[in-house]
Amino acid sequence: MADHRALSEPDGIGLDWGTSSCRAYLLGDQGVILARSQGPAGLRSINPGRGGDPAAFDRAFEQLCGGWLDTWPGLPVIACGMVGSRRGWVEAPYRELPTDLVDPALTCARVRTRRGVELNVIPGLVDLRGLRGVIRGEETQLAGLLGAGLGDGEEDVVLPGTHSKWVRLKGSVVTGFTTFMTGELYELLSRQSILADLIHPVTQPQWTAFDRGVDTAAGAVTDGTGLLGVLFSARTLPLTGAMAETDVADYLSGLVIGTELASARASWVRGTGGQLWSLADSGLSARYRRAALRLGWQAVHVLEDAAARGLWRTAKAVGLIGSRASTPGTKQDTAPKEGR
Amino acid sequence: MADHRALSEPDGIGLDWGTSSCRAYLLGDQGVILARSQGPAGLRSINPGRGGDPAAFDRAFEQLCGGWLDTWPGLPVIACGMVGSRRGWVEAPYRELPTDLVDPALTCARVRTRRGVELNVIPGLVDLRGLRGVIRGEETQLAGLLGAGLGDGEEDVVLPGTHSKWVRLKGSVVTGFTTFMTGELYELLSRQSILADLIHPVTQPQWTAFDRGVDTAAGAVTDGTGLLGVLFSARTLPLTGAMAETDVADYLSGLVIGTELASARASWVRGTGGQLWSLADSGLSARYRRAALRLGWQAVHVLEDAAARGLWRTAKAVGLIGSRASTPGTKQDTAPKEGR
Repeated sequence: MADHRALSEPDGIGLDWGTSSCRAYLLGDQGVILARSQGPAGLRSINPGRGGDPAAFDRAFEQLCGGWLDTWPGLPVIACGMVGSRRGWVEAPYRELPTDLVDPALTCARVRTRRGVELNVIPGLVDLRGLRGVIRGEETQLAGLLGAGLGDGEEDVVLPGTHSKWVRLKGSVVTGFTTFMTGELYELLSRQSILADLIHPVTQPQWTAFDRGVDTAAGAVTDGTGLLGVLFSARTLPLTGAMAETDVADYLSGLVIGTELASARASWVRGTGGQLWSLADSGLSARYRRAALRLGWQAVHVLEDAAARGLWRTAKAVGLIGSRASTPGTKQDTAPKEGR
Repeated sequence: MADHRALSEPDGIGLDWGTSSCRAYLLGDQGVILARSQGPAGLRSINPGRGGDPAAFDRAFEQLCGGWLDTWPGLPVIACGMVGSRRGWVEAPYRELPTDLVDPALTCARVRTRRGVELNVIPGLVDLRGLRGVIRGEETQLAGLLGAGLGDGEEDVVLPGTHSKWVRLKGSVVTGFTTFMTGELYELLSRQSILADLIHPVTQPQWTAFDRGVDTAAGAVTDGTGLLGVLFSARTLPLTGAMAETDVADYLSGLVIGTELASARASWVRGTGGQLWSLADSGLSARYRRAALRLGWQAVHVLEDAAARGLWRTAKAVGLIGSRASTPGTKQDTAPKEGR
């Protein structure tokens, strides 16, 4: 196929459409990002109530992708994230675990836009065992990780964030996941709690303070004290002169991230915990990588822009991209791209 | 002394003066409460900035205690709590552990009110070991517990609240304490987090939901998952139909209180953990008692109004009440009241 098309000719459009923002990607071969546009058109701003407003979704969609579709009217469009929730544009019912991320039989929910384009929305995953779990959007980031060098056995993937996910992946199959409310708890504590007065953000992370938090948290996981029993030290240490106030923000960051990693290592990771895959932006990834190496992992692999790659890969799996590639003149392109 | 005075004649005035409120007590023998008055005159409203405003403290004091002092001008006045902090009326420097709560050599900070009365402020405690700890006000509640049937060995006392304290008490000596940010975390999660939408307060506690939270939390302390790793179930369980929305508030309450108790039992309690002393209002005490019995304690003793008793007992220990009793005609009262 690549022989017949300019290198920059897009395969499709992918949207990572969540609660707080929408990121749109013009996707080339293998999910390489040819162009991107981003808007604040998250569900929170589009659809603050519980009722849906298709017109608002449509406007946001046109704003982000209209120009691309004017140029390439036939591009397939695929989306992931909360846009597929009950409060989104079209509901894409959850798939139950275990789930093959690139199952050709995967059914996307579909909605036709005003322009006449079909938006394909990837369903999230639900785990109906134990404490239950749901993800929407992360399944697509995970699909983006496939082919990035994962082994054949069960691998541990962390998706750090507001609600960090820990996922067990065996090949392309998700066998389990769990959630840590790390990012949200950090926000609450640093902005709304009694600790807020002590949080003085600095431009460069105070790594020594961060490490101190990680070590304290790990000790507290081991001896059972837990995060709830050490959080107050972010107040008493500076109050008694045992910590500079400028260190408190990163100490607190170390406490919560260290708790997540040490807890996951104690209770979630099944194998040797030798390597960890991390999908996050660079700022968070640096913190998770540092803490993970400190707590016993030997290697932490970080992948950015996993959503874009995952959108492309899922579109390929369900034939959205394959069908476009099968136009006259590209018939010879029958070998799967997955192996490249 | 009691021979010479009417039963209702007060020994003194005690103030439990914290961040959010001030409770004033007219105290009789052994700290029995003859009258009480309460105002919203906590430090937060009196002194929101960092600078002090003695006049505002004085006005609040007059409002709460002026009438009593008009009737009994010579009454000694003793206070505990944040009124003795750097941002309070007069700073009462911390005492270091170990601390005898009824040490006759204890020095109160003093400030003379506009009326000419001397306000004696009980210092808090500081632990300069490990993660550090400070308390202000709780030390007086603990003093109120003395003589209530504590054993001779080390006893565990919990003071549930915004920042729950766990204290080791040996006789009248505090040998250690630690803090769990349980109450504050519950407030943040139930009001500001993604869980807030699901919190529907009900008039009667949903005990089954509370117990479910306690059990989940205890399991998570044992296996290392911790609170951070189970909090999200307060969202996923109702979302997947595995919990009624009306149960979420008490489930979350069970999660945080259960975490505190299970963590303390795992990491803090040294002995057999047979009995626990709890100082809190009745609503919280019922929750702590229920969870504690569920998690292995054999008996939970609850004491209310401990602050009033502790104010009296401390005033007695430092001679504030003794000196008043030594007015002519009461000279025969030289035996300590402690033993009654």
